[in-house]
Amino acid sequence: MIILGCSGSIGVNALEIAKRFCLEIEVLGAGKNISLLNKQISEHHPKAIAIADAQDIPKITPAFQGKIYIGKEGILQAILDSKSKLVLNALTGFLGLEPTLCAIHCGKKVALANKESLVAGGELIDISKIIPIDSEHFSLSYLLGFPKTSRPFRNLYITASGGAFRDMDLNEIPHQNALNALKHPNWQMGKKITIDSATMVNKLFEILEAYWLFGNKNIDAFIERNSHIHALVEFWDGSVVAHFANANMQLPIAYAIQLGLGLPESFLHSFHTNKAIPDSIISQLDFQNKNYQLQKIESARYPLWNLKSVLLENPKLGLVLNAANEIAVEAFLQDSISFGTMTQIVQDSMQTFNKIHFKSKEEMIALDQEVRDYTRRKL
Amino acid sequence: MIILGCSGSIGVNALEIAKRFCLEIEVLGAGKNISLLNKQISEHHPKAIAIADAQDIPKITPAFQGKIYIGKEGILQAILDSKSKLVLNALTGFLGLEPTLCAIHCGKKVALANKESLVAGGELIDISKIIPIDSEHFSLSYLLGFPKTSRPFRNLYITASGGAFRDMDLNEIPHQNALNALKHPNWQMGKKITIDSATMVNKLFEILEAYWLFGNKNIDAFIERNSHIHALVEFWDGSVVAHFANANMQLPIAYAIQLGLGLPESFLHSFHTNKAIPDSIISQLDFQNKNYQLQKIESARYPLWNLKSVLLENPKLGLVLNAANEIAVEAFLQDSISFGTMTQIVQDSMQTFNKIHFKSKEEMIALDQEVRDYTRRKL
Repeated sequence: MIILGCSGSIGVNALEIAKRFCLEIEVLGAGKNISLLNKQISEHHPKAIAIADAQDIPKITPAFQGKIYIGKEGILQAILDSKSKLVLNALTGFLGLEPTLCAIHCGKKVALANKESLVAGGELIDISKIIPIDSEHFSLSYLLGFPKTSRPFRNLYITASGGAFRDMDLNEIPHQNALNALKHPNWQMGKKITIDSATMVNKLFEILEAYWLFGNKNIDAFIERNSHIHALVEFWDGSVVAHFANANMQLPIAYAIQLGLGLPESFLHSFHTNKAIPDSIISQLDFQNKNYQLQKIESARYPLWNLKSVLLENPKLGLVLNAANEIAVEAFLQDSISFGTMTQIVQDSMQTFNKIHFKSKEEMIALDQEVRDYTRRKL
Repeated sequence: MIILGCSGSIGVNALEIAKRFCLEIEVLGAGKNISLLNKQISEHHPKAIAIADAQDIPKITPAFQGKIYIGKEGILQAILDSKSKLVLNALTGFLGLEPTLCAIHCGKKVALANKESLVAGGELIDISKIIPIDSEHFSLSYLLGFPKTSRPFRNLYITASGGAFRDMDLNEIPHQNALNALKHPNWQMGKKITIDSATMVNKLFEILEAYWLFGNKNIDAFIERNSHIHALVEFWDGSVVAHFANANMQLPIAYAIQLGLGLPESFLHSFHTNKAIPDSIISQLDFQNKNYQLQKIESARYPLWNLKSVLLENPKLGLVLNAANEIAVEAFLQDSISFGTMTQIVQDSMQTFNKIHFKSKEEMIALDQEVRDYTRRKL
């Protein structure tokens, strides 16, 4: 398979899973972290690599004798040249969309961790080729079954941690700076996603992804403070099933790879045949005596949550949310604006571009640029 | 189908489901509540009925022109004479075992609400013919899938309400009387099962039933105070899935009937074809902002819970537990003994008969009698 974004957290975990299940890596795509890439080359022996910048070529270990691809076009070329059936796309940002489209065009499956592919480009994507890596969407898939059950469902629910300000006095939130917003209550993540967790924009993205993945608008979210329950499905009959697990991306990654490679599920659990029960993919959950609550997401605390119904009504607006949010978060992280201003700016852009439509990738990219320019002017 | 125990709560709910899904009733088996039986006859038009006592024949509505069966043997004869593929057995007590065995012998499936069939007679029963009606075992089946998933699991968990004394000072519990033990925190049930809920004996029974039904000894229970979560399955991979629903027996009954009659699951949800999502079988669960905790069952509060490992080691001891417990609960309900004495007496009988075995129904019945006689002498 191909792993794009191999030096990030998803990529590193994907390589752990590849090692555990003895899977071959055809292409490793990294950004600028060449020292980690070199370690991964020596362990996984990819046939080719893709890196961001030609200037980094001299830093690549001399032991590597395969093909080297460079830059955005290099990633696409590597996909076109490869024999792999599966591309694991863990690129960050808008950059991740074209490789997704390219892989699908080549008849490959995509194990997708790149949010922008669906949030901004959901309309352009053949969903039957996508396997989600997000823990929330994996949990929904797990509850709906592989293959998906024919049992009708009433609602899909995903959960949120609530982010850095889940317990802060409401009046204080608008005045907060990046330093405070980066204090995620449950774990360490990248800066952008940690801010998106505090504003609930990350959950809006996931609602949109769920819409594209499951073709249904009956999707909502709750705060679950332990980050143990990742999703729930309310079936037609009155049953609600919930998926609990420790928050560890190796679980969705393992299933995404198994499904993406078209292997039977037994491939995963038949790996240690001498045991009555196979070794767990991730550590076992200790749920005993923990407090679980599925709390309503209050728009007083998370004003951007009000955008949920607008987005579900017109999912193409994900493009606007993503572009405006990226610009606003960038400014917030540079301490140019407060938390409250950041959310206002996103709301303003969503208001301004509330009737967009696009039909091609080119129109979409132009619109994305327009939203970014507008948002920048508003800063 | 045949419904045995039609005047009890399970029977009444089963007839509601039969009405909703337009299912024919071949035989109705009631006890002494002939006025309710008459109403059910006029609504469901069974071909035959079974009643406990010949003296009640004159009370049967003259509108009923079908066959009448009498007593224990009558129930068996009705099963032998019937064409139904399914027997819903909601009889209470040891009386329920023989109809279960008889129905299986006749090649019928059994939707089983009678606990004693499996607790005492699990060894004698062809499990492939049994569909459980208990909400805990239904929930386990629902989580494992119809048909059962091949995904290995590590543990099965069922839940308990905790019964009347879940919050009482530990020192006060042994001195309690029946009046207090009958104050179930979550709902009204029959007296016997309400006491079994306070002692955790009911949960020991369900652990044994789960053992027979799922062929696995990795079964445990937790207290969940809302009675919304009924079961959890911990799969091999680190996932835990939980089944939530309002406590309403119509859900397990509807599925048991569908499965027992060999109908596809779509039979249940295709009933209202003019709706996008079919009407729920039971009312929708409001899980928002509720507190859920899976609490350890403490043996200081529930001393009989210590019997769990003994029972799982030798599941035949369910016969002893059932017999001793029935005698002790009877005495407790008559205020002859305190709550503490009741539990001690059950423990004593379990200690005395800790090495039993039986191979036939006759040996089992003799042993059951021996345990009852011994327990009665200890009172």
